[in-house]
Amino acid sequence: MLHVIFIIAIAAEAMTAALAAGRRKMDWFGVCVLAAVTALGGGTMRDTLLGHYPLSWVADPTLLLICCGFALLTIALARFMEHLRWPFLLLDALGLVVFTIIGCNVAIEMGESPVIVIVAGMITGIVGGIMRDVLCNDIPLVFSSQLYATISIVTGALYYLGLQLNLMHDLVTVLAVVIGFSLRVLAIRFNWGMPKFIYDKELR
Amino acid sequence: MLHVIFIIAIAAEAMTAALAAGRRKMDWFGVCVLAAVTALGGGTMRDTLLGHYPLSWVADPTLLLICCGFALLTIALARFMEHLRWPFLLLDALGLVVFTIIGCNVAIEMGESPVIVIVAGMITGIVGGIMRDVLCNDIPLVFSSQLYATISIVTGALYYLGLQLNLMHDLVTVLAVVIGFSLRVLAIRFNWGMPKFIYDKELR
Amino acid sequence: MLHVIFIIAIAAEAMTAALAAGRRKMDWFGVCVLAAVTALGGGTMRDTLLGHYPLSWVADPTLLLICCGFALLTIALARFMEHLRWPFLLLDALGLVVFTIIGCNVAIEMGESPVIVIVAGMITGIVGGIMRDVLCNDIPLVFSSQLYATISIVTGALYYLGLQLNLMHDLVTVLAVVIGFSLRVLAIRFNWGMPKFIYDKELR
Repeated sequence: MLHVIFIIAIAAEAMTAALAAGRRKMDWFGVCVLAAVTALGGGTMRDTLLGHYPLSWVADPTLLLICCGFALLTIALARFMEHLRWPFLLLDALGLVVFTIIGCNVAIEMGESPVIVIVAGMITGIVGGIMRDVLCNDIPLVFSSQLYATISIVTGALYYLGLQLNLMHDLVTVLAVVIGFSLRVLAIRFNWGMPKFIYDKELR
Repeated sequence: MLHVIFIIAIAAEAMTAALAAGRRKMDWFGVCVLAAVTALGGGTMRDTLLGHYPLSWVADPTLLLICCGFALLTIALARFMEHLRWPFLLLDALGLVVFTIIGCNVAIEMGESPVIVIVAGMITGIVGGIMRDVLCNDIPLVFSSQLYATISIVTGALYYLGLQLNLMHDLVTVLAVVIGFSLRVLAIRFNWGMPKFIYDKELR
Repeated sequence: MLHVIFIIAIAAEAMTAALAAGRRKMDWFGVCVLAAVTALGGGTMRDTLLGHYPLSWVADPTLLLICCGFALLTIALARFMEHLRWPFLLLDALGLVVFTIIGCNVAIEMGESPVIVIVAGMITGIVGGIMRDVLCNDIPLVFSSQLYATISIVTGALYYLGLQLNLMHDLVTVLAVVIGFSLRVLAIRFNWGMPKFIYDKELR
């Protein structure tokens, strides 16, 4: 079940990344790379930092093909996507939460400490988007936008806590997904963000 | 033989990167770093993603010294380089193809699947240039320019296919190099590129 | 002793990165991430390139919390920091030298060759700042500013040479720290820099 949502989330990430590539007038190859980096970059970064080999897409290259397939599909269907902002936002919210839980699971299986479990979940959830923004020559959106990483942290913390309390694994997963997803939707709808730190002086 | 061309290609990559550094008015140290990152970054990324340690330049630090040496040579000879566009393009084309084949070989030796063999070749061929562009604060050229990554993919696919067909290793290597190199030269000469995906709407 | 200075240096790097985040109007989360990436990114890159697992902050997540703590402290105290340029520059200089020596030690323990020992020290010393600049969408400062990486290289070379000469470990450490630190302070004070390579032609 988590795996099905994982694939849907990867497809959704690939499609929004493809649109971002289109805004930079990239060619079809660039669209595919940006899609794959965005969709798989978070898990890749987590596994590289934890020394968790082989990487998921190396073990299962179908993931790469899915990214490229949905990226090219986006090119073909671009004209119909203009009004799909909310569907994409919802899929992206689902992806954030599911990526987070999968990332936590990898760290738990490796026997990492609580902080690292939550950080591994967050890296899985947000680093793909950061790589996309760096490759598009933007300051990463996640550093200044509506609650996103915070929701990944909350989701990971709830999930880890639930497992520590010996609740049923499925129940914990569903609860974490529902709460994380709802928080993200509320954050978009009501434009919740972290306070910003604005500093415009040079040190003297 | 492949090793000799590999060293020539590294030198050529280092030299073009040094010129890019000069366009950003970097100091001598920045020139050396950009040269080394560009020339060795593709292989480094491949090895890090595949968990293939030690990295080539860690095992053989001479590679780093070669990069720095040719970067500094470029500074010394910069005034004579203005008319060397074609020699550099040809060396870069050779480098792309040779880097690709070396990357494929690493993945084959590790027993990776066909898709990963080709992806490993492509990463070796193109990621150094992507890192150069990110450090120079540009959107990577490879995402929107003449056929480059595609040629790496074609070269890697031909090479892998040839080996699967049990052709002589040297013959396969020469064929892949010649075909890949010729395609790249044609792509530059006739300005062949992938179609671009241009999307200028925001989702609603 | 080295460990105490290491923690101080991490705190100082986190605080200057927090101010850089504030100049980009990042939110509190972005400030924490930029602080952690800047303070821990050099060691992370070194360990990833050398295949030296687990990473320091994975083994000891307190380091992450220290970065976030000092980043948030910076937000709280930002109004008082305007005149602290020199204290921060001195702490940063100390950090550069200490990070370098710690990086050299990791490579020495892994039995790497002299060039790699010095490169490992330099990567530990400078890569955090490069990552900070890339995430802030700037060309890395270290490629064009006053002597910084060069001092890391000199410090690492002195340290390695001293150990090879079988001098007392503590003496070598103190000497390398004092010489590296002094050179950096002199470089800032007298605006010493590497010569720049300025190239404004396109190849033809």
